[in-house]
Amino acid sequence: MNRPSPSSPAPPFAPRDALSRVRVVLSNPSHPGNIGAAARAMKTMGLRRLYLVRPKRFPDPEADARAAGAGDVLERAVVRETLDDALSGVVFAVALSARHRNLGPQRLQAREAAPLILERAEAGDGDVALVFGNETTGLSNDEVQRCQRAVFIPADASYSSLNLGAAVQLLCYELRLAACGGRPREATRTLPFSSPPASSDDIERFYAHLMRVMVRTGFLDPRQPKRLMAKIRRLFGRAALERDEVNIMRGILDAAERAFGGQISEDRFQKTEDRR
Amino acid sequence: MNRPSPSSPAPPFAPRDALSRVRVVLSNPSHPGNIGAAARAMKTMGLRRLYLVRPKRFPDPEADARAAGAGDVLERAVVRETLDDALSGVVFAVALSARHRNLGPQRLQAREAAPLILERAEAGDGDVALVFGNETTGLSNDEVQRCQRAVFIPADASYSSLNLGAAVQLLCYELRLAACGGRPREATRTLPFSSPPASSDDIERFYAHLMRVMVRTGFLDPRQPKRLMAKIRRLFGRAALERDEVNIMRGILDAAERAFGGQISEDRFQKTEDRR
Repeated sequence: MNRPSPSSPAPPFAPRDALSRVRVVLSNPSHPGNIGAAARAMKTMGLRRLYLVRPKRFPDPEADARAAGAGDVLERAVVRETLDDALSGVVFAVALSARHRNLGPQRLQAREAAPLILERAEAGDGDVALVFGNETTGLSNDEVQRCQRAVFIPADASYSSLNLGAAVQLLCYELRLAACGGRPREATRTLPFSSPPASSDDIERFYAHLMRVMVRTGFLDPRQPKRLMAKIRRLFGRAALERDEVNIMRGILDAAERAFGGQISEDRFQKTEDRR
Repeated sequence: MNRPSPSSPAPPFAPRDALSRVRVVLSNPSHPGNIGAAARAMKTMGLRRLYLVRPKRFPDPEADARAAGAGDVLERAVVRETLDDALSGVVFAVALSARHRNLGPQRLQAREAAPLILERAEAGDGDVALVFGNETTGLSNDEVQRCQRAVFIPADASYSSLNLGAAVQLLCYELRLAACGGRPREATRTLPFSSPPASSDDIERFYAHLMRVMVRTGFLDPRQPKRLMAKIRRLFGRAALERDEVNIMRGILDAAERAFGGQISEDRFQKTEDRR
């Protein structure tokens, strides 16, 4: 195990470039100490790109202290207002979640997920992201559904509450081993017609478009979209949409909208929505 | 974070008794926060037996705080004056050590070491121990030589300084996976709300329905359906559609057809097709 790839000679555990395309996203972290611990955990495993969504306190001396020699990761941390913003440009996101979710994306154990995540990072068509939730409340269902896979760390059933920094450490460790271990590739990407993976932004626009059409045709009650949209996200999340496929699906939706009487602009739709 | 929901099903990773024969020994820890973090890390992975050699401050409120729900591990922690005392009754000890040592014991990567450690614990002729050194100075040569193996965690060469609690977390995680056989059971099909897989017939009827809508809206040229349909089949084939999902997709198509002026029967559609 852990043989270096032919292209990376001397050091026994030379990470591949793929690790530089991995974002670690902490959504709504409460404790600055955990932000620092996450930065340190990342850097020990060769990851550097920390994203913070609405951190309660940041920057903060406690984060600096716990980061130890990883202050540079904190300095370059990107702070965003929403998870969507933090995932802009991301083609594959995994949500760390201990809980089974109704209608969540496919669940994988951390060790199984690592080679998949790496593979998507190696493809080089965008960033990948590991998404971690708040220390107490974890990720919301909406946040989990924003991701293509849910990842769990096998823990003791009687006490499975890992510290946030410890969870970041484990995931980054698995990614590093996967990056250095030369696991066999999945065959999926070699299928004919395969195009680059769709970005999160493209996929979100597709969901918004589909939702608009479903509301317009009376299939979806816009006051209660959640359950149906969750099921749909679960389906397409499992498929891991490619760019061409998103274009096809949106083409179908455009054609349907034209067929039932002129495409409505997003503005008009918004107004209709607001009136309900 | 990562609290299990009350409804989470039977644990997929029943640990073996061997984990109860593993001691985690912290030699000369300086920061009580790290002792608490180690206790929490242990308990999440099903380990409970913490030994402390000359801790600088213990007990300590900071240790309690960082232990979170693992206060019981701290309460039962055994404090000793020397490493020899802490290793009394131990048949196999491994030293966590990043550095190569002259005359040190055989070095193994954490993942390689875990099954060996477990094997010794399962033999049942005594305890095994994971030995961790001081946060700044690590283990002394004497301490490492007191152990049968040296274990290292593969880390980035430019910054390999793992936090003590994080190192304990990684080792305990590797032990837990080794104890549980490494591989999880396939969780995908046990998700709540996942419905039985759709039958081939159901799926074919869905494709026919989708094709009809695409032709009707002008998106698909019925004389040349092949390439587009192949792409669509590839997408949904990858997702491995469930029965409920096929129903949802067909519901969307029905609603769209009604929206653009009365659903056409398959018969009429067939005739239209034949005429081309």
